Amino acid sequence: MKIGIVGGTGDIGEGMCRRLSSRYEIVLGSRDAEKAITTSECTVEFLKKYGLKSCCYGVSNQEAVNAGDIVILAVPFKHLESTLSGLSGFEGKIVVSPVNPMEKRDFFTIVPPPEGSAALLVKKLLPGARVVTAFNTIAANRWKDLDVEIDVAVPVCSDDADAKSVIMDLVNGTSMLKAYDAGPLAVSAMIESLTPLLLNIARYNKMHDVGIKFV
Amino acid sequence: MKIGIVGGTGDIGEGMCRRLSSRYEIVLGSRDAEKAITTSECTVEFLKKYGLKSCCYGVSNQEAVNAGDIVILAVPFKHLESTLSGLSGFEGKIVVSPVNPMEKRDFFTIVPPPEGSAALLVKKLLPGARVVTAFNTIAANRWKDLDVEIDVAVPVCSDDADAKSVIMDLVNGTSMLKAYDAGPLAVSAMIESLTPLLLNIARYNKMHDVGIKFV
Repeated sequence: MKIGIVGGTGDIGEGMCRRLSSRYEIVLGSRDAEKAITTSECTVEFLKKYGLKSCCYGVSNQEAVNAGDIVILAVPFKHLESTLSGLSGFEGKIVVSPVNPMEKRDFFTIVPPPEGSAALLVKKLLPGARVVTAFNTIAANRWKDLDVEIDVAVPVCSDDADAKSVIMDLVNGTSMLKAYDAGPLAVSAMIESLTPLLLNIARYNKMHDVGIKFV
Repeated sequence: MKIGIVGGTGDIGEGMCRRLSSRYEIVLGSRDAEKAITTSECTVEFLKKYGLKSCCYGVSNQEAVNAGDIVILAVPFKHLESTLSGLSGFEGKIVVSPVNPMEKRDFFTIVPPPEGSAALLVKKLLPGARVVTAFNTIAANRWKDLDVEIDVAVPVCSDDADAKSVIMDLVNGTSMLKAYDAGPLAVSAMIESLTPLLLNIARYNKMHDVGIKFV
């Protein structure tokens, strides 16, 4: 199973590549393919320190879409629409949105698009894609630091039951993440609200990279 | 410190009374004061089984507002505005909103009022009240079952720092609840979104009375 990462040279994309590329073939995309090649080479070197073999290579965002059975959109919300408008070929692919439409004002707040959530916007922009919301609340630092397992809950939602199941398996096979079925894609509005809440919790309680568990 | 509970004969109000009335004086309000008296008497009897002395008495909702230093609004969102429109005397009091504006459609979803959240609506309806969001995600069954401690996180937000501090102390002194400062009252929109998400998590994962922890 090949996983394409659009925006793979950002903090989240690079961190996901570190965690996933020892078990899956990762096709790391970027607007700048050269940068993606550098990031993939660095990831291979980084994983060597842990005695792990990393299978990843850097390409353009479009090539990452083309190659991936699963395509993860590791882009900030503000660049989501412009990034997707320049890409094609998502039909039939499982497209994962970890995107949170949020802003930092005096505090962190959710600012959803008219569609209701980033994932619902993705579904509108990419007809035929099998859109799944997942990985929204995991901070880049947690993805990147292989010395510490990520032991948090990951709510997953989608209107495509098979795609949701594939992504829940991916979640459950990654570090100590635990996937929870959160229902249909419209629940993404509530999942995406978690991240600004967690950023506020971190800020006002002097914590770092706060995650959630369901108990 | 006296705590008034508006809507104290509902499941949440009665459950909160069970947990709080062994440590605080609870003034349990209802539209029907007779019903509140019955609930308070039952609570006293119930706590006796646990060797606990319950200090609570049943009154009208207005009398609960009048008597409370803190007033908890234990009413469903659909009755919030009509309930508050019939009450007065909130000025200067700490008013706690555990209210979640949500609906059950095919799934549970947040349906915020134009103000952005139930707590922001309360602030508009009750000028002069010191509004605090807290206790949103705790299921009635968890409040009621004194055999099991409630070991979950409670995000608390308010624009009144002193009121927030009082309620965080109240949270931290109740069962094994742990209060987290979530920032200003506007963050209530994200806190209130948690409850329908948790109800979806419970439903789609065959869980019961799901709570959260921040890790």
